Order: sequence, then structure tokens, then C-alpha cells
Amino acid sequence: MAKSSTAKSAAPKGTSGLFDSNYNPDLKYPGFGFDITHKDPNSRARVGKLKTPHGTIETPNYIFCGTKASVKNLSPIQMKEAQTDIILANTYHLMIQPGADLVQKMGGLHKFMNWNGPMLTDSGGFQVFSMGHGTCADEIKGRNINNKESLLKITEEGAFFKSYHDGKTLMLNPEVSMELQHKLGADLIMQMDECTAYQVTKDYTAKSMEMSMRWGDRSLTAFEKHHNGTQALYGIVQGGVYEDLRKISAEYVASRPFFGTAMGGCLGGSDEEMYGILDWCQNYNHPDRPIHFLGIGRLKDVITSVRYGIDTFDCVMPTRIARHGMALMKGAPNERINLLNKRYKDDPEPLDPSLDIPCSRDYSKAYIHHLFKAKEMLAYQIVSQHNVAVINKLMREVREAIKNDTLHQLEKEWLVD
Amino acid sequence: MAKSSTAKSAAPKGTSGLFDSNYNPDLKYPGFGFDITHKDPNSRARVGKLKTPHGTIETPNYIFCGTKASVKNLSPIQMKEAQTDIILANTYHLMIQPGADLVQKMGGLHKFMNWNGPMLTDSGGFQVFSMGHGTCADEIKGRNINNKESLLKITEEGAFFKSYHDGKTLMLNPEVSMELQHKLGADLIMQMDECTAYQVTKDYTAKSMEMSMRWGDRSLTAFEKHHNGTQALYGIVQGGVYEDLRKISAEYVASRPFFGTAMGGCLGGSDEEMYGILDWCQNYNHPDRPIHFLGIGRLKDVITSVRYGIDTFDCVMPTRIARHGMALMKGAPNERINLLNKRYKDDPEPLDPSLDIPCSRDYSKAYIHHLFKAKEMLAYQIVSQHNVAVINKLMREVREAIKNDTLHQLEKEWLVD
Repeated sequence: MAKSSTAKSAAPKGTSGLFDSNYNPDLKYPGFGFDITHKDPNSRARVGKLKTPHGTIETPNYIFCGTKASVKNLSPIQMKEAQTDIILANTYHLMIQPGADLVQKMGGLHKFMNWNGPMLTDSGGFQVFSMGHGTCADEIKGRNINNKESLLKITEEGAFFKSYHDGKTLMLNPEVSMELQHKLGADLIMQMDECTAYQVTKDYTAKSMEMSMRWGDRSLTAFEKHHNGTQALYGIVQGGVYEDLRKISAEYVASRPFFGTAMGGCLGGSDEEMYGILDWCQNYNHPDRPIHFLGIGRLKDVITSVRYGIDTFDCVMPTRIARHGMALMKGAPNERINLLNKRYKDDPEPLDPSLDIPCSRDYSKAYIHHLFKAKEMLAYQIVSQHNVAVINKLMREVREAIKNDTLHQLEKEWLVD
Repeated sequence: MAKSSTAKSAAPKGTSGLFDSNYNPDLKYPGFGFDITHKDPNSRARVGKLKTPHGTIETPNYIFCGTKASVKNLSPIQMKEAQTDIILANTYHLMIQPGADLVQKMGGLHKFMNWNGPMLTDSGGFQVFSMGHGTCADEIKGRNINNKESLLKITEEGAFFKSYHDGKTLMLNPEVSMELQHKLGADLIMQMDECTAYQVTKDYTAKSMEMSMRWGDRSLTAFEKHHNGTQALYGIVQGGVYEDLRKISAEYVASRPFFGTAMGGCLGGSDEEMYGILDWCQNYNHPDRPIHFLGIGRLKDVITSVRYGIDTFDCVMPTRIARHGMALMKGAPNERINLLNKRYKDDPEPLDPSLDIPCSRDYSKAYIHHLFKAKEMLAYQIVSQHNVAVINKLMREVREAIKNDTLHQLEKEWLVD
């Protein structure tokens, strides 16, 4: 798939060529900035300020998924009420419907969806490649999903696939992704990469990573074409579960004038493997750039990963589990309670009055249980907002804990075995 | 079904016995009141103040349906934001799930669903009898629905039916309905009646009406058992499309110590027939009591019916059509626009900025069109709240128009042919 000669030329060897001296982030990304304001002496954990044209957020922070330009069941007002700082939307879904041109015509994503805070879009690649080999979750759970009918082919040029909307053949590559993300207009955008699966060989992973590096350079070139100071580009570290590949990929991203670094690709089948991979990469990632952890965001992931220097997270989990009746809960087994459980049928207590928002304070668990049983959609709204508020509370407490060197205590309060 | 001898004894003849002199509403319903503050000189239209233990509302007003203790897709906060004064819940749905005992244990409906304003419950009868002969809408549209499997039998004792939840045989009669409504704890409650269908004969309608009158007396007796000043009971006028029967039923309700009068039963197959029936009844309904129009609530129904002296309306229409992409709109053909129509694909205008709430002011029609196309549930929330806000605006304008004698002008502004 990838020509290895091209791949080698794109992969810097050793540390030479790292931290390109011609790159000045203040000049390249003038509306953006990342200031690390506190470092934990005992780990890589850090508190920072991530500046965008739509506001500055404190990190570590959590980017909530508004996949199709809407965080499911929640309005921007409800997101703000839950103290949300930043959200994302998915380029893949939006290119299919309503189309990036339409979003641009309507004034860009911020105006279209009425969110005036910082936003991120991904490249669209992840969803396209998920068609080919299923999701990471599918792999971990041993589900063998192979939607070859949707993903037609991957070449050096790009990925060809069928629209789930109308069956038309579409193509996504670095140039297309940069143009789409430019039209969508989020603050933080992502290079195009291939996200490899757990089940592929090391050889495939290496070649794919090398192609992702070439796609990174093409993304940077295409980014420049539209660059007007309103967007900042992240590079993505690939390399699967292989230390040597992760090193090459991390060094590549650090060597290029990306604003931020995103940790991508498959991260293994266990938490230990995932944190091992994070650890390898952080030896080579650029220390001064914000590090985003793509698609990872359980409470335990957050509390552990910040120690590896992760600055931002994203995951559909908070709103997805809400639709299945699961409310995130500090100190609960598996981080959550199942409101469908009959134990809540006559429970007069609210979800968590300390959150001080109506959804967590004013409705009894009995009422929410009833709403789920009666299939009343207000249940989704209540529990989704609660879960977002829980995550945002966690992030505030994580930042305080890093400042006060109490992460270990925080972990005990939030997580039980 | 009904013994005619009993029926005759329950039906007062002529006007003798009307307006029982022993009945003093201020004594019987001390927490309640209905003061007519303005009367239109040219019609029966009137403005009033309806006082309940949970607040006083101005009439004419619209009671929004929170069928299963939730107005679909909208929180009480969103209902208040849309300037809602009063909502209802359905006894039939709540007796099945979660059960009236559970609601009572949780502190009653107001506390359970976190609505602190005035509330109404119906008797449960309408849904039970709908099982037997389908809904009015079914009839008007010629659909022949006959769920005899659910409605088992109707006798003088009550209605026996199968729970859609678990298949158990349940019974609803005046005594059960009063007990259920007492446990639910709404402010305004309804006598148990049989709601007859359009397709039944005059003989059946007469016998059913006579039974409803006997059930009215049983409801009054059962109401007394639980009466503690927190609830006020409405009688229901039946009699189908027959003037002589409507007269008997209206006189019956007026002669009994009901707090309010509800217009029930089938109202014919055309608007003309419906208003003719209203006109008959209003000659005999108690002039000092609030008049509720059960299940009727298109914009044109509201604007026309207030001239017949209707004080309150209820209908699922505002939130139901919202889920099908229909936004109520002043002066639009058929009172609404269809947001699924491709003409809205790139329409940057909001639904109605004059409503001054986020859902009507801050989202473009293009965005809402996209949300429906993408099956994003936020669409339901936005359009449902918009529709509620439109209705509440209409009701405010109706009250002003009655005060200023400008109903005719209001009709021209809101309705087009």
C-alpha cells in the first residue's frame, strides 16, 4: 500500500531534525497558545492554558462529542450549564450530511450549531477506516466486523468509500480533509492519518504509519493553503503497539510544525498496554505542545492518563451510556450506576445535588427510572447532562489535584475496584 | 349496559334542580377559584383567573400534555422558559407505569416530575375506551380500529381492560379513578365518564351518557372520601352529536357541585358540527365555572372556541407534530411549516426570534433541518419547545384580543386559508 522508499524519506531517524528551528508557534498559530502553568513533580501531569480564537480553556480538559454537529440530546446551553469548555464534531459525518459546503455557507460550525466556545474536528479518517476493520471496541471484544462494502480501498492517494447516506463513492485524503475542516471552521483540527487496527501485522502497521507521516506532510501543505489564523493543526502519532514504530511516529510529529500532538491508533488490548504505549510516546512527543488522547475517556482513563502528560480527552461515552440508563457516579463500581435497576424504582434521592444543576439536583432517581421504563426521551436529556457535568467536575478536580499534588487521593475518591 | 331506569333518575329534567343552592364553590373548593374578569360583548369569549393551590393562571389557557409525567422531550424548566402556565398528566398511563402508589410515595405528581405549577389529570377513561373503538382521529379518518383484546368489557361497575405493560387485567371506575387521581395529586381532576365514539348509535350514546352521569355522581361521592382541599373536580359533558342529549348532560353537570365543566365525547366529523355542539352545550353549561375542552387544540380551534366560552384547552399536538418536523407558525398555511422540506436546507433564519427563547431565536432552520435529517434528538427538543412557546404566545394574544375586542383581527394574523 505504502511505498517504503517514500516512507523512509518521511521518517526522521534519531533526534536530528526534531524541533525544527524555523518553526515558531506564535507566528504560525497567532490566535492560539499553550502555556503549561503547573507541572507535577512526581509524574508528567501538568496544568495548562490552551488558547483558541473562541476562548482559553484550562487543561487537562475533556472534549465532548457533537458527532453530527450536536451533542446528543443536549443543547449548547445545556452543555454550558454543565460547565463544558470544549466540544468536537466529526468531519466524516458532516461531509456526508449536511456537507461541509452547507456548514460553511451557514457561517461555519460554531454559528451553525450555536456553540461559541472552542471546538475541534477530527480528520474523518478514523470513521472511514473503522469501516474496514471495525472499531477498537469491536476488536477488543473479538467482534469480527469487516464492512468492505463501505470501505472500497486505501491507496497512497487516499481512502475511497461509499456514503452511508446515498451510496455515492467518496474520497478522503489529506487535501480533502484539510479543505473540509477549513470549511467546517473548528479551532483545532487534525491531520489525515490511517488508524490501524489491533489485528493487523507489524509490517502493515509500519507501512501504514509511514503513509500517515507522508499524509501528515501533505496535511501541513494543504493546511497552509487555507491558513488564515483561525485554525491550528494537530499531528497524530501512530505505530500501534510497537515501541520502535511509536518512537518514529512521535519523533516525526514533534519534528513538524504541528500545533498539537494527538495520540492515535490502536492502543492494545489492556490498560497496561495502553499506558505502556503512552509512556513510550511521551519520551518523544514534543513537550511544549498540547497532547490530545483520541477517543479515550473513561474516568479511570482520565485520572491515570493525566500522569502521562495527556492534556485533552474525547470520548462518546458520557452521552452514549446515558442513553442506556447509566449515570456516571463518583466512587461507584465501574464508575456508574444503572438507573434501569429496580433498586432505583422508589429512590427519592437525586443523582448528585453537589453538581448544582437541575438534572442532577431536582429529579429523583425514581423519576428518572420511570422515564427510562416509560421510554420518555427526557431521560436521555437528564442523564446526558448529568454525565457531562460529572466529567467536567472530575476535570476541575483533576486540575486542582495536579496543582496540589493530590492526584493519588483524588483517584481513591473517584475510583473503586 | 346502563339500566335506563337508573339513568332517568340521574338526569334532571328541565332547569329545575340546576345550580344546587346548597353548593358554595368557595366552601367546597377553598384553595380554588374562577373569576371572570372580562367578557366579550360580541361572543361568549371571556378572560378569567383560575386559582389553584399551585398558582393562579389567566384564561383562556392551554394545558400541555405530560402524558407519562413528562412533556415529551421537555423539562419543566424548558416548559417554564416557553412561558407555560399549566400541564396535565394521564391517569391511565400512570396507573400502569409507574403506578399511582409509587407517585404518591414520591410526594405526588408535582414533586415527582418537578413541576410546581398548576396541573390537571384526566380520569383515565378516555384511553381505556379508545381501546374499544379507536380514537376520534381514527374515526374521522375512517380507520377501523377495534382493540377488543385490550378493552375487555364495560359494565355499570366500570371498565375492565388488559395492561399494555404486563397483560394483567385492570379495572377503572369512578371510585378507582378518584383514588388514583387523589394519589397522583394534580390540582384539577376529572370525573370518570365513558367517552363515546362517532360511529355508535344515538341509543348507545344516550345510555352511555346516562351511565356517565351516574358515574359523575359516584365520582363526586368518591371525591369526598379523599377531599382535603388540594383538588377540584370537573364534570364532563357527554351526549355525542345529539342536541337533546348534550342538553341533558350539560344540565346534569351544571346541577352538580363540580368545580369545572369539561366538554367531552365525540364532537362530530367537521368543524361546523363541533362548534354547533359547543354552542348547544354552552346554553346549559354553568356560566360561572371554568370550561375545559378535552383533547382539542389546533390554533384555529383555540381562536374559534374561545368565542364559545372555552377557558382551557389540551392537546398533544404541539409536541407530537414537533417530533415529525412540524413547527407551528403564525400565519403559515395549516398553522405550521415542515422543517423536513428541502427549502429549509440552507435557510439561515431562525424559527421566530420574536419569541425570544433560544430554540426559536438562536438556531437556523437549516440547522434544525439538518438535525432532523441526521436523526439528532436535539431537533425534538428545539421544535417541541418552540411549539409550546408559540401556543403560549397565542394564548397571551387571545386574552389581550378578548380584552380589546380584536379577536377578529387576531384570527386574520394567525390563520390563513
